[in-house]
Amino acid sequence: MTRIERDSVGEMNIADTAYYGVNAARAQENFKITDNLLDTDFIISLAEIKKACALTNRELNVLEPAIATAIVRACDDIIGGKLHDQFIVDPLQGGAGTSSNMNANEVIANRAIEYLGGTRGDYSIVHPNDHVNKGQSTNDVYPSAGKLTLLKKVPLLMAQLDYLETTLLQKSDRYQDVMKLGRTQLNDAVALSVGDEIHAYYTVISRNHQRILNATNELLRINLGGTAIGTGLNSHPDFPQTAAKILREMTGFNFLPSQDLIDGTQNVESYAVLADNLKTLALSLSKIANDIRLLSSGPLSGIGEYRIPAKQNGSSIMPGKINPVIPEIVNQCAFAVIGNNTTISMAVEAGQLELNAFEPVIFYKLLESFQYLTRVIDTFVTNCLVDLEPDPQRCLENLENSTSLATDLSKVVGYSRAAKIAKDTVKSKDDFRTTALKDGIPEKLVKQLHY
Amino acid sequence: MTRIERDSVGEMNIADTAYYGVNAARAQENFKITDNLLDTDFIISLAEIKKACALTNRELNVLEPAIATAIVRACDDIIGGKLHDQFIVDPLQGGAGTSSNMNANEVIANRAIEYLGGTRGDYSIVHPNDHVNKGQSTNDVYPSAGKLTLLKKVPLLMAQLDYLETTLLQKSDRYQDVMKLGRTQLNDAVALSVGDEIHAYYTVISRNHQRILNATNELLRINLGGTAIGTGLNSHPDFPQTAAKILREMTGFNFLPSQDLIDGTQNVESYAVLADNLKTLALSLSKIANDIRLLSSGPLSGIGEYRIPAKQNGSSIMPGKINPVIPEIVNQCAFAVIGNNTTISMAVEAGQLELNAFEPVIFYKLLESFQYLTRVIDTFVTNCLVDLEPDPQRCLENLENSTSLATDLSKVVGYSRAAKIAKDTVKSKDDFRTTALKDGIPEKLVKQLHY
Amino acid sequence: MTRIERDSVGEMNIADTAYYGVNAARAQENFKITDNLLDTDFIISLAEIKKACALTNRELNVLEPAIATAIVRACDDIIGGKLHDQFIVDPLQGGAGTSSNMNANEVIANRAIEYLGGTRGDYSIVHPNDHVNKGQSTNDVYPSAGKLTLLKKVPLLMAQLDYLETTLLQKSDRYQDVMKLGRTQLNDAVALSVGDEIHAYYTVISRNHQRILNATNELLRINLGGTAIGTGLNSHPDFPQTAAKILREMTGFNFLPSQDLIDGTQNVESYAVLADNLKTLALSLSKIANDIRLLSSGPLSGIGEYRIPAKQNGSSIMPGKINPVIPEIVNQCAFAVIGNNTTISMAVEAGQLELNAFEPVIFYKLLESFQYLTRVIDTFVTNCLVDLEPDPQRCLENLENSTSLATDLSKVVGYSRAAKIAKDTVKSKDDFRTTALKDGIPEKLVKQLHY
Amino acid sequence: MTRIERDSVGEMNIADTAYYGVNAARAQENFKITDNLLDTDFIISLAEIKKACALTNRELNVLEPAIATAIVRACDDIIGGKLHDQFIVDPLQGGAGTSSNMNANEVIANRAIEYLGGTRGDYSIVHPNDHVNKGQSTNDVYPSAGKLTLLKKVPLLMAQLDYLETTLLQKSDRYQDVMKLGRTQLNDAVALSVGDEIHAYYTVISRNHQRILNATNELLRINLGGTAIGTGLNSHPDFPQTAAKILREMTGFNFLPSQDLIDGTQNVESYAVLADNLKTLALSLSKIANDIRLLSSGPLSGIGEYRIPAKQNGSSIMPGKINPVIPEIVNQCAFAVIGNNTTISMAVEAGQLELNAFEPVIFYKLLESFQYLTRVIDTFVTNCLVDLEPDPQRCLENLENSTSLATDLSKVVGYSRAAKIAKDTVKSKDDFRTTALKDGIPEKLVKQLHY
Repeated sequence: MTRIERDSVGEMNIADTAYYGVNAARAQENFKITDNLLDTDFIISLAEIKKACALTNRELNVLEPAIATAIVRACDDIIGGKLHDQFIVDPLQGGAGTSSNMNANEVIANRAIEYLGGTRGDYSIVHPNDHVNKGQSTNDVYPSAGKLTLLKKVPLLMAQLDYLETTLLQKSDRYQDVMKLGRTQLNDAVALSVGDEIHAYYTVISRNHQRILNATNELLRINLGGTAIGTGLNSHPDFPQTAAKILREMTGFNFLPSQDLIDGTQNVESYAVLADNLKTLALSLSKIANDIRLLSSGPLSGIGEYRIPAKQNGSSIMPGKINPVIPEIVNQCAFAVIGNNTTISMAVEAGQLELNAFEPVIFYKLLESFQYLTRVIDTFVTNCLVDLEPDPQRCLENLENSTSLATDLSKVVGYSRAAKIAKDTVKSKDDFRTTALKDGIPEKLVKQLHY
Repeated sequence: MTRIERDSVGEMNIADTAYYGVNAARAQENFKITDNLLDTDFIISLAEIKKACALTNRELNVLEPAIATAIVRACDDIIGGKLHDQFIVDPLQGGAGTSSNMNANEVIANRAIEYLGGTRGDYSIVHPNDHVNKGQSTNDVYPSAGKLTLLKKVPLLMAQLDYLETTLLQKSDRYQDVMKLGRTQLNDAVALSVGDEIHAYYTVISRNHQRILNATNELLRINLGGTAIGTGLNSHPDFPQTAAKILREMTGFNFLPSQDLIDGTQNVESYAVLADNLKTLALSLSKIANDIRLLSSGPLSGIGEYRIPAKQNGSSIMPGKINPVIPEIVNQCAFAVIGNNTTISMAVEAGQLELNAFEPVIFYKLLESFQYLTRVIDTFVTNCLVDLEPDPQRCLENLENSTSLATDLSKVVGYSRAAKIAKDTVKSKDDFRTTALKDGIPEKLVKQLHY
Repeated sequence: MTRIERDSVGEMNIADTAYYGVNAARAQENFKITDNLLDTDFIISLAEIKKACALTNRELNVLEPAIATAIVRACDDIIGGKLHDQFIVDPLQGGAGTSSNMNANEVIANRAIEYLGGTRGDYSIVHPNDHVNKGQSTNDVYPSAGKLTLLKKVPLLMAQLDYLETTLLQKSDRYQDVMKLGRTQLNDAVALSVGDEIHAYYTVISRNHQRILNATNELLRINLGGTAIGTGLNSHPDFPQTAAKILREMTGFNFLPSQDLIDGTQNVESYAVLADNLKTLALSLSKIANDIRLLSSGPLSGIGEYRIPAKQNGSSIMPGKINPVIPEIVNQCAFAVIGNNTTISMAVEAGQLELNAFEPVIFYKLLESFQYLTRVIDTFVTNCLVDLEPDPQRCLENLENSTSLATDLSKVVGYSRAAKIAKDTVKSKDDFRTTALKDGIPEKLVKQLHY
Repeated sequence: MTRIERDSVGEMNIADTAYYGVNAARAQENFKITDNLLDTDFIISLAEIKKACALTNRELNVLEPAIATAIVRACDDIIGGKLHDQFIVDPLQGGAGTSSNMNANEVIANRAIEYLGGTRGDYSIVHPNDHVNKGQSTNDVYPSAGKLTLLKKVPLLMAQLDYLETTLLQKSDRYQDVMKLGRTQLNDAVALSVGDEIHAYYTVISRNHQRILNATNELLRINLGGTAIGTGLNSHPDFPQTAAKILREMTGFNFLPSQDLIDGTQNVESYAVLADNLKTLALSLSKIANDIRLLSSGPLSGIGEYRIPAKQNGSSIMPGKINPVIPEIVNQCAFAVIGNNTTISMAVEAGQLELNAFEPVIFYKLLESFQYLTRVIDTFVTNCLVDLEPDPQRCLENLENSTSLATDLSKVVGYSRAAKIAKDTVKSKDDFRTTALKDGIPEKLVKQLHY
């Protein structure tokens, strides 16, 4: 029921049915951290990279065509969704991704062995290192697969950002004429329209959108063919260009080889840049969520200028209470993304000499950030923003009730006198026009005051 | 096959078989972020809190004994491991935990209804809010359940810290006489024993251990009976004391009511303190992992003074390479814990007025940090430290090869002359004693030089 | 006009008038980062440590009494405020504090030389390394001086925390009977008194106060006598105990030697713990500042329940605008302290082997955090909290206007019916009692409803 | 000797000699945090903005030419370096920069009053708000001045980055043929040249260089003319375009108005983006500093492949010790920059509604990060990298001593057999070729093995 496999540590029994081998099995023992398995897209990306490398080796005549073909077929199985349960290693692992790479090499080798009529474990037919990993190293395969995975996540986030921007733009258009009080430092300032207020949210989100797209461009430089440290040892000199070309055709992403493969192997700060851009999006989302919570506060004894849809009972004890649960989950996901950015920055800084060995935690937390942001924007738009609306009456009351006309008045009477009238207004709780009249401002001028 | 339930939003069809109700169902729709469900210990803690509250209400004569008994039985089912699949809400949720609290209230109510002979959904028999949540609010129940959950995680981490400390102490004892070179700023300094070097790791870990224990003491103050904002509205005046007493008896943890229940409801910085202490442990673990990676570097062209066990092949391309994969996963988990601390700090700061609505992300990331640390220490000790050993020959070579005797010499000849000899040693690549003799230091003195 | 001094690098001209020597002069060239000089208390602490060490060496009979006495006199000059301009090295420096330690050694040596009748630069009389630094190393002197410095800063912060707590307690007492609306998740919840609301601020601050005091206890363990790496090489075996005793008598702080001097030299996580506690204080201060800004928002079209004193014109364009500038500077200092904590954590993690070489940035940023917190609390209390007062009329209006009575009502009519009435209240903009009557709640019951 | 000035708070005595007025004086009292004054470039930038606004108002015929001219002359004084001692407000201040803006308005008004023949304090001639601040608000002036200041700092950093890149490139060229051992995960891997190793440092720095330049482009969008909240109230409709045009001509920076002025006033995440890019540079610098410290470690019992220049005595106790003090200060500045980034992110997230009131701490910490990076790169290059050189003999020894040939061998004999030989080599401490021969690898093949 088991076969024996060997590695540098010694022998190990592997279930006969397993496509993975001793490397994956040892890693499974060594790393039991997250209870999670590798992201499905990451598994497929590993198979796509392995396929591209086999095709490269075949094109460069360094791998027997029959073996190459068997490897490609095995990869296609994984790409098609099969054998994913054979990827048994925790994504949080020591060793710069070696365990996940070897897990892939083993699964592909064993499947290819079957295609060539052999028995799983007979690595004389297809060897995980000598054939599947030929001309490769974890240090070029794993980051390339990680980049491909991230590139697949980007459109999901971009689609949600589109959805968010479209919704904000529609709201902005619809409420272009609803005037409300603007506030600076939480204090009554001057008027703006609800449409303009929401348009600012649209603008900042679209700026973040563009930045993330720019940052993802850095992911298109891959170091396949660099092997262990970027010198290309054990790989064909044309491997980088050929592999990038094949991967371009296979995936549609415009991959190019790193111009400095040694740099491309050791310096991973492009992930920090991507994480930073996700973090900055999180900062902006959190600010917007804060504003919406504030503007919809009350409903009666708060600002109450916005109404957001009730999506669930707000309280287990306070009847009728509706809380801004959707913006609140936006804040929390933002905090998580910001924390992940700290993790990623530390991992990037910790790289040493010819390799950064901490890519597993970088990818794991980057993928978590992508997931949280993508999903939380979905619920933010669907369950909050789509049905958000201003309360025009409350907007008007708050505007009229404030001293915001003082700024307009100051153009005529100067800052100092306008300030005195504003101060008197606050003290008297009369409205500003009344107080201005009492102060001796001519009625005609008072009438002309506008927001 | 479905029943209709109502809440402030309207009506909703709920599967007849479901013990959860409309509140949980809406929350499930609203929050699809992590793909995870609530931690099992957290589910049980919620049931324990609910049971304690039912017993409290019965003791204070504010809940019909029959209903109280049915609620207790329902809670016991959950505590015993049943009905956990009815807790359907994502742990990352808006609303300060209301959704998880209502999920518990609904499951308990429906199970209690059955015990009283009713049909699920007939809340006239046992009402989720009016009976199960009686005298309670999410704002006291959820943090109390979260604290109880954390207190259950602490011993798991402490056990691993004990294991780590014991192992370090054993190593320290065993290698008390193996001398080696100490290094400051990565440069050759003066001698110490391997045992002393490892003892310093023991000391810093035991200090962290104690700090975490101290920090968990803050978790023993709970705000049950404070209800919505800590004023105790809708709760019996004796609820806080009684509930704490019952919970002490039930759990063995020495719970006491918050002395200022309003503070106890809104200020959650004790979680930040706990997270800080986990972070500081992570800093210390990462430093130790870094040292072990450095001291075991090579094996031939590095420092090579420590040997760590090979746990898996180190490389897919470099044959025979063994890498420090276990210390590396320690670093990565440390980075994750440090990032989680950022998240938790931001969530703590973001509390507003009478409540911190961001406890869900605080608990979620705190529990993740506990899990990562507990598990990574296990693999660190089992798969690395237990079999770590010094290479005494290499230790001696490196010590002899260095200029560490210059410090001893300086006591006799002064700093300046000793510095000159040290400098000459580095230049000549002779050993220090030879160079000292050449410089005219008397042979007798040279012979007496010691580490 | 200059004398020539020599070190490992070569010769250097030093101004004849200078008390510092070649080590300080080179460091001044190497490190031009902050434009600042070492904190005055740090300079004095260095002199106190040096004095204690000279007395220790004399007591242990390893330093000629005449030289020891001269060194002590030189130290007393510095302690008395003289020669501070001779400390020329940037506090942000490479080398674990060696440059500041050598700067002190040189200044003290040259002053001692003068006391013994010699000429500055004639180190045959008193040598910076062989005499002033005797039995010492930067690696025990610098952190011990740093700890002593921090211990001097603690009472300044504690005094401000006392001031803050006293002020909050007075406000709490004064406004014990002013009822206001409590809010959770920024939404109208239930009533509490202004006094109770402010008392919660008092409680959380006093908890932070106690934590910082606890954390500073860790500073009392010093590693004097451990020398370079904690083995005590070149130091008398009784040096640690004797130096600690003398330093206790000299400073009044209850210093004790580290129990594990090797740990005491390499592990500096106690600074991270102190920084964490300052950070947590910052989180709590920022939350309070946020609340006060929110509760005083308006003044007319915000919540407006608190009034804070006008301390300056709020706007250059909006006349009469008064902004919460004092709470805002609290937030900003809190953010700075939180960022400093990140810096300190990274520096702590980066220690390697027998030393943490990054103590200069740790001390520099810790001292900055102490300064910012101490000063910002002063202005917070003096310029905001002392004159903060509630607007009782607004408090009452907001309370009456809300649906907060629904929770009380639910005790009698159940959660569901109370929720319906609350919902109707929000829709109608009638008050809650009126809506309850319309819903058929008996008049007697409505009258009894209370906060 | 004093004049009396008035503001919303009341009256205040101002020294007759002072050009600042009551607004600055009150702010000086309110904010005593840092002991620092506003950055000189920031003072000049404020004057340039004020000048551009006066010219704009004159061009748009909304300000009397005589007053405009007097304001311009006053601004030119400040631009020319005069009156800087009149800027008395702490740069860390509450109020979104109002105090610094009003400080500028007052100094300029009083100087302009003198030019028009009046007496300081007679604001009927030139009023700080009505004339100097005409058509402006702190909320457009202060961030615009901040952006201009940052843009002046960028070239200083870029020049140092050029210096760093040029130096690295020269080193890379010079040592193209010195072969050394590459290491992954701190373990012996395969060969590369010193030149290639250093080239990777060049590449990552130049990538960071480009990113910072890209990020600074965002600073060119300014919101002058948006006034308080971006609606342009009290400002001429052509103000934004005209002011940007004049500022372009005046400064040479290609300023353009924000396309959405409301967004441009409230959303300040572009500073977070700039801070992120400085942080990522810091991550890369810290990694390089770590590598250089590691590769130069020893000098005898470490890796010792690089030699860095001795810049000062390394130790107060260990004679002859030379430490990597220059790379160490690089690490520490990097940690400070990373911490500042945390501060800035928090401040960005904390913006509310129509304004981010926390720009003062953002600018203060951004400027600190610019200063630290600019200066530390200077010392890094000048005092370390320029004289860094490899030890070719040590490089060769380490390379030969390692098992790095196993990878080449595996191409012929397969991964498994090569791994066995590598393992035997480590055990035997023979060299790899000898062990390979013993294992039966043909002599011809062994001779052909190459790095």
